[in-house]
Amino acid sequence: MILRALITSLLAVGTIVAPPAQAAAADEPIKPIEAAKPKNENKVELGKMLFFDPRLSKSGFISCNSCHNLSMGGSDNLPSSIGHKWHQGPINSPTVLNSSLSLAQFWDGRAKDLKDQAGGPIANPGEMAFSHELAVGVLQSIPQYRARFKQIYSSDKVDIGMATDAIAAFEETLVTPDSRFDKWLKGDKNAINKTELEGYKLFKDAGCTGCHNGPAVGGASFQKMGVLEPYKTQSKAEGRFAVTGKEEDRLFFKVPTLRNVELTYPYFHDGAAATLEDAVNTMGRIQLGRNFTKDENAKIVAFLKTLTGKQPHLTLPILPPSSKDTPKPHPFD
Amino acid sequence: MILRALITSLLAVGTIVAPPAQAAAADEPIKPIEAAKPKNENKVELGKMLFFDPRLSKSGFISCNSCHNLSMGGSDNLPSSIGHKWHQGPINSPTVLNSSLSLAQFWDGRAKDLKDQAGGPIANPGEMAFSHELAVGVLQSIPQYRARFKQIYSSDKVDIGMATDAIAAFEETLVTPDSRFDKWLKGDKNAINKTELEGYKLFKDAGCTGCHNGPAVGGASFQKMGVLEPYKTQSKAEGRFAVTGKEEDRLFFKVPTLRNVELTYPYFHDGAAATLEDAVNTMGRIQLGRNFTKDENAKIVAFLKTLTGKQPHLTLPILPPSSKDTPKPHPFD
Repeated sequence: MILRALITSLLAVGTIVAPPAQAAAADEPIKPIEAAKPKNENKVELGKMLFFDPRLSKSGFISCNSCHNLSMGGSDNLPSSIGHKWHQGPINSPTVLNSSLSLAQFWDGRAKDLKDQAGGPIANPGEMAFSHELAVGVLQSIPQYRARFKQIYSSDKVDIGMATDAIAAFEETLVTPDSRFDKWLKGDKNAINKTELEGYKLFKDAGCTGCHNGPAVGGASFQKMGVLEPYKTQSKAEGRFAVTGKEEDRLFFKVPTLRNVELTYPYFHDGAAATLEDAVNTMGRIQLGRNFTKDENAKIVAFLKTLTGKQPHLTLPILPPSSKDTPKPHPFD
Repeated sequence: MILRALITSLLAVGTIVAPPAQAAAADEPIKPIEAAKPKNENKVELGKMLFFDPRLSKSGFISCNSCHNLSMGGSDNLPSSIGHKWHQGPINSPTVLNSSLSLAQFWDGRAKDLKDQAGGPIANPGEMAFSHELAVGVLQSIPQYRARFKQIYSSDKVDIGMATDAIAAFEETLVTPDSRFDKWLKGDKNAINKTELEGYKLFKDAGCTGCHNGPAVGGASFQKMGVLEPYKTQSKAEGRFAVTGKEEDRLFFKVPTLRNVELTYPYFHDGAAATLEDAVNTMGRIQLGRNFTKDENAKIVAFLKTLTGKQPHLTLPILPPSSKDTPKPHPFD
């Protein structure tokens, strides 16, 4: 305890323990996020329109942004999502923010990339409840969409691959650089305070960075939910097992990013942890065999809140109107 | 017919019949829309946040923008709206664009102004299904909201009147000036083409401007749906009668604005007219006793599309996160 107190006060002074400004990031398990550099602005703009367009759903009411709400950390802040006809989804919607940094998409990684992911909810009967063919039919019937697809993909015929490619291009721009923690990583030692820095130390020392590392502070591996103690849940989600069929993959889930975690409550694949305090406690216990004290928990939570980055600055897209040839939405059948 | 052809060609030439540039607007039954001049930018910004915040609903899923989608002409483009637990609403969502120009709010005018209107859907069991008390409780629990309300209303305690006042202030900014028709009204004779101008002449000559006039091209009076022929509908909406209880007000509805009508399909209080062509035909027949020819209909539709104004250029708001004291949403009960 005396040693810990000494370290803590040295950390507070910040001159001896804190690494020199430029070298900081390189030595840390967490890396700064860099701003997006979109290659094709037209494609990003089209992707943004599609992301916000509820006509990609059967009802004409649900868009990508319904469950990955960019006003709310790219999530819906619900334990599990609401789909077509108010269907209760089986799993918590992961944030779309920084999702381009993940090794795969969905909690079980069943989509290899953002493009592959984007087609999933459109055709899922419990989500947007449409089909790729019908979604393409809607887009193809709208002259302004046709013109944009033609400009980008040099084709008179829209296909689902173009639509998901554009959505993915937009999603790739949804990174959140310039968090206070990233400023600290880049050498601004005043960007986080003493408590937050202590929280980061604890986060590392306890082993959290074993899984939550890299620029996304997660998203780089699949790990078992409940390593040292089984995780109790009502959720039927089987994790990676559902993809590989291998028994050893049961309950392995993609490690979620902790970027903007302050905004993406509730937590875990079942959304069962309502607060960061809950999530830190449970993770400590079942993954690391550690019961954090109230003080330790508070410090880790304080650190986690420094991971909130600059949210995407987006102009709300104005969607082109349907034409008389556009198939009508079917919200109630 | 010869006379009509002559008038038409004179109109096409545009020098004899078209009024002189500056005098144009004053002589016409439709007036240009002026840009909004917000008095309190902070209040408008707060109102925008509230407009986009689904935490004003029981489910945490439905915001004002769900049914008055500012990407889609301030409407949901559905015959009737989807509410809590996918409840099918009884009436078509009117556009929020230019709604500040209406004599009252809702189809039956039961709210005297935008502030009065904004409280309605929050507490309607078939819409956002919340209560004013619960909505205020959510706002009061979020420090960043509390601070914004305090700055604007000089009070530590949020109340529903402040919330609806802020939403109304935002909605007052949602006007759409600079339509091609407004440019024509202001003297730019090339802003609309020959067909569109002919459509406007027909629109006036047929008597449409009897109700659809002023800057909003509507919104200034209640009129009976079905003047010369009863309107056949499944809708149980009784119109103004529901407010006044006077038999003579039965099926009187607020005349909808035709601004941005190209974007606000489907049409009428029951959303039964899928296209502008349908709407123009039905209106001609049941309100004016006139069967427009296909050519006349096409010209009026062409004119109506010149009423699409500059859509609000909005930055998507970033909503402050809930605190640990924020009541949880209840989407499934």
